[in-house]
Amino acid sequence: MRNWREVLLGTPLPTRLSHGERLDKIRALAALSPDALSSIAYANQEIYLGLIVAGSAALNLALPIALAITALLAILTLSYSQTIAAYPSGGGSYTVASENLGKYPGLVAAAAVLIDYVLTAAVSLTAGVAAIASAFPVLWQFRVEVALFLLALITIANLRGLREAGTLISVPVYLFIGSYLFMLAYGFVRALIEGPAAVASMPVMEAAQPITLFLILHTFSSGCTALTGVEAISNGVTVFKPPETRNARQTMVVMAGLMAILLLGSIGLTQYFGITAGPEETILSALARHIFGSGLLYVFIQITTLLILVVAANTSFVDFPRVTSLIAKDGYLPRQLNNLGDRLVFSNGILLLAGAVAVLIILFGGDSHALIPLFAVGVFLAFTLSQSGMVIHWVRVQGKNWQLKALINGIGAVTTAITFLVVVVSKFFDGAWIIAVLVPALIFVFLKIHEHYVEIRPQLSLKGYTPPPPPKQEPRVVIPVSGVHRGTLNALQFARAISHDITALYIEIDPSQTERMRQEWAQWVPDVPLEVVDSPYRSILLPLLAFLDHTDRVHNDGQQAVLVMPEFIPASWWQHFLHNQTAWMIRLAILYQRRRHRRARVIIEVPFLLEG
Amino acid sequence: MRNWREVLLGTPLPTRLSHGERLDKIRALAALSPDALSSIAYANQEIYLGLIVAGSAALNLALPIALAITALLAILTLSYSQTIAAYPSGGGSYTVASENLGKYPGLVAAAAVLIDYVLTAAVSLTAGVAAIASAFPVLWQFRVEVALFLLALITIANLRGLREAGTLISVPVYLFIGSYLFMLAYGFVRALIEGPAAVASMPVMEAAQPITLFLILHTFSSGCTALTGVEAISNGVTVFKPPETRNARQTMVVMAGLMAILLLGSIGLTQYFGITAGPEETILSALARHIFGSGLLYVFIQITTLLILVVAANTSFVDFPRVTSLIAKDGYLPRQLNNLGDRLVFSNGILLLAGAVAVLIILFGGDSHALIPLFAVGVFLAFTLSQSGMVIHWVRVQGKNWQLKALINGIGAVTTAITFLVVVVSKFFDGAWIIAVLVPALIFVFLKIHEHYVEIRPQLSLKGYTPPPPPKQEPRVVIPVSGVHRGTLNALQFARAISHDITALYIEIDPSQTERMRQEWAQWVPDVPLEVVDSPYRSILLPLLAFLDHTDRVHNDGQQAVLVMPEFIPASWWQHFLHNQTAWMIRLAILYQRRRHRRARVIIEVPFLLEG
Repeated sequence: MRNWREVLLGTPLPTRLSHGERLDKIRALAALSPDALSSIAYANQEIYLGLIVAGSAALNLALPIALAITALLAILTLSYSQTIAAYPSGGGSYTVASENLGKYPGLVAAAAVLIDYVLTAAVSLTAGVAAIASAFPVLWQFRVEVALFLLALITIANLRGLREAGTLISVPVYLFIGSYLFMLAYGFVRALIEGPAAVASMPVMEAAQPITLFLILHTFSSGCTALTGVEAISNGVTVFKPPETRNARQTMVVMAGLMAILLLGSIGLTQYFGITAGPEETILSALARHIFGSGLLYVFIQITTLLILVVAANTSFVDFPRVTSLIAKDGYLPRQLNNLGDRLVFSNGILLLAGAVAVLIILFGGDSHALIPLFAVGVFLAFTLSQSGMVIHWVRVQGKNWQLKALINGIGAVTTAITFLVVVVSKFFDGAWIIAVLVPALIFVFLKIHEHYVEIRPQLSLKGYTPPPPPKQEPRVVIPVSGVHRGTLNALQFARAISHDITALYIEIDPSQTERMRQEWAQWVPDVPLEVVDSPYRSILLPLLAFLDHTDRVHNDGQQAVLVMPEFIPASWWQHFLHNQTAWMIRLAILYQRRRHRRARVIIEVPFLLEG
Repeated sequence: MRNWREVLLGTPLPTRLSHGERLDKIRALAALSPDALSSIAYANQEIYLGLIVAGSAALNLALPIALAITALLAILTLSYSQTIAAYPSGGGSYTVASENLGKYPGLVAAAAVLIDYVLTAAVSLTAGVAAIASAFPVLWQFRVEVALFLLALITIANLRGLREAGTLISVPVYLFIGSYLFMLAYGFVRALIEGPAAVASMPVMEAAQPITLFLILHTFSSGCTALTGVEAISNGVTVFKPPETRNARQTMVVMAGLMAILLLGSIGLTQYFGITAGPEETILSALARHIFGSGLLYVFIQITTLLILVVAANTSFVDFPRVTSLIAKDGYLPRQLNNLGDRLVFSNGILLLAGAVAVLIILFGGDSHALIPLFAVGVFLAFTLSQSGMVIHWVRVQGKNWQLKALINGIGAVTTAITFLVVVVSKFFDGAWIIAVLVPALIFVFLKIHEHYVEIRPQLSLKGYTPPPPPKQEPRVVIPVSGVHRGTLNALQFARAISHDITALYIEIDPSQTERMRQEWAQWVPDVPLEVVDSPYRSILLPLLAFLDHTDRVHNDGQQAVLVMPEFIPASWWQHFLHNQTAWMIRLAILYQRRRHRRARVIIEVPFLLEG
């Protein structure tokens, strides 16, 4: 049982290894920025797809939209660097919103954040597959399969516990940063030398829609997915070497600068060259192909794009289980999400995330474009709650320059709230409505779970509990028998070990068999009384349940008779279908009675091993 | 729990009602012939589809092929009327083949017959839906859904026990016979008066394939599905009023005559009028539309076609559970297929059939044409085995004119064997290969099940068994505890009732909690020892299993310690997800040990009711 697990997931790790490792700024950037940096891959694509429906001419709006997004990025960077200072132990949206805005906004943030992690993973994986399928078009029709395969790899890696991650992850991240900066610089030089005339041969697309304000807002809100992940550093302050706050803030500024360069550079060059893409290619791929041709350098760019998107998906696997364990600790999710697994990871959270991501990938056909409307809503909902929480935080805590700090976060809150509204309105029928349904549904689940935990606490508590006196009598045992064989006698032997008050019950289906049964029973088990009840409708269950109730009423000793049954254990799994059908039905009926009729009857199945 | 069942399935019926009712010839024909009579619906369609690929001209081969099939029908009728005489208690292929040819041919016949029943139901339902969808084309795209809906109705009706069937079923059967005979007569008169010129406007189809011998054999073998169900009367001799044999033989001759008239009449008129059908219409529908126009009479014909096909599907629901119960009685299928349900029907067999038919309808997209290649193979395999068995029967039994009788069945066996080979060869790649895989697979299953039943018989038998002396000691009990609460103390109370040898086991995940646990335990349960084992890898299962094995070894008393655990019973089903996860894992691990490591450890879960 353990062997295949160890091959796949590695040997278990002892608890004492569970202290974290502190990272320098270089490695912290690699660990915390992949989600933010990689988001240009799908944001670029969204801006392109949002505008192209209005024809090639509309593509000239790409750069202005990218500039607006960059302005929003600046505001968010300023806002979150204040969160870093205020929450050096890590200020996720759930923490900040619950502490400052109260329980319900906290739960809204929790729901939004969980949905975001699922969508980050789904969007990153599908966008990564789109990048590599742009280079190898044969993969395009297998996008779902390839995405699921990558998902499986990430899931297994995380169940193993990606402890070496810090250094290992740096490689694809810096490869991505380096190769993209090189591509942009090279493209910039080519643009200076050759000018836009070099690409006059690009096809002019017809406009399917006019350029409207709605179209622009719609595109802007899709492009805002470029900002996802900007909050990651503020959540992860504790991984930095001291002085944590300063290091985190510096790293965040570097990250935001890189994000701005990548976004503006790629969009600017795309627009300058007038690049368009076919239906089975991403716009970033078309840009890279234009700059480098279709050679090795181009393929390398696509591979680093895939790699950083996979790493970005991986950050969800680090954060989602951590946040679900926090929520579970507060009693809003099942407790088992807070159990550390063999490899010091929250295995249940990882599996839950993997399942949800797989469902999304399959439902949306591996198409990141279809997932984006859902994604953007959750991201900006969490941003807004987190920033509003920070405003309240400064009002509550005050301290030096608190009015200025509150103002900065206030601007952040207002701009993200406006963006949130734009996203919801412009994307509602594209899929944003799903989130509008899902967030309240998740909150309902949180509250029901919490209510249940609160209700059962006093029922389990020993406060004011006087332990009952030791039981005066053995349990009364009832054994249903259909014939006399070794399985029956084996169960009877166990019943004898636990009680002297045993009744065998024979349910008469075919009256012609009853006399033989009585004789055999008297021969083999003369000391245990055999009760016979008839069943004109051939039901086993109803006469059995009636007999049990009857015998409890007759004895009226505050106990319920214990049911002892033989259970055949065959040697092969498939042989289970040939045995224990009746015992299984009886078991189901008793389980049903327990839940519906609040009975606490004990069933004991005595295993009887069958060979061959 | 019983209310919705009674509404759906009716109140239970007492066993004493389980004697059958004898039928006169009129009602027996209605009960036993629907499968045979209705098969012209799909056989006609198959002959048309088989020829049309070679163009309109090839349709002239339809009548010669139908004549060949009619000749085969005559041979089969003669052969089976001998089976009626030889097996007045009902001679199904399984019975005849096992009695005369031996175990393995019997099992082959069993597999073939079971597959046939499934396919009869699937083909009849889909052909019936095709008939009604020809009249109401809007249904064509919902063929799968409509077929599944009808399947559900038939399943429920049979689970209720179709006791009134005899009379009720006569209505659609005689409506079908009457309306088809009327249509053929009316068409014949029109043909005489108008001549073929009336339909010169029919479109001429281009040939996609040449007319080859293979094409003709292929079409012939599809058309042979017209013969399915011809054996039904020989299986059901016992339902006839005395003199059973004579009545059955007479009824069979009438049925065969009707089959011949319907087949030759409909094919002859179709060919004479030169009728062709579009892709969303059956050829019989096109014929009826041609004869009657698209008015009420036409719709009526389509409705009676649907009804008789539904009744034909229903005969599978009568026969399949009966045959599986026979096979189960012989120990080749799970015993529970031989249990009479509440309503005196073999409910498990009905459900098994319904599931298999549903799978076929979905897999083959509700298209009877796709199912026919599978169908024809099984039918002729069963025919061949049954007829060969009859030859051996006469050689064994002899009696008056036995050589002649053997010769007649011999001719039947040879012709059906040749047809079987033609079907297999010409349809192999169309789906007949599925049957070639399925029959051996089913036989493998039969044999494995039988082997298992044979092997366990001596293990359960009391022959030479000396009952063990009454147990000298109480069971040793181990209670795994994760904390002290009322659930724990409730389980402990039960443990105390059955034993004085109790050990509590605490698995230390977080060493900082251990001291508090020890103190609480000492405070509440001073008289039960608490063992603490550490678990550096945070596993609950492995230290628990190791402790159980260890304690068994130490005591070395031939017993295995009994595991007692609390089981929380919440008030709502969904709250189960919040509890008992660990108990459930432990249970799974013990079940695994039982099967793989042949341990017979008893687990007792003591229910603890939670409110709210």
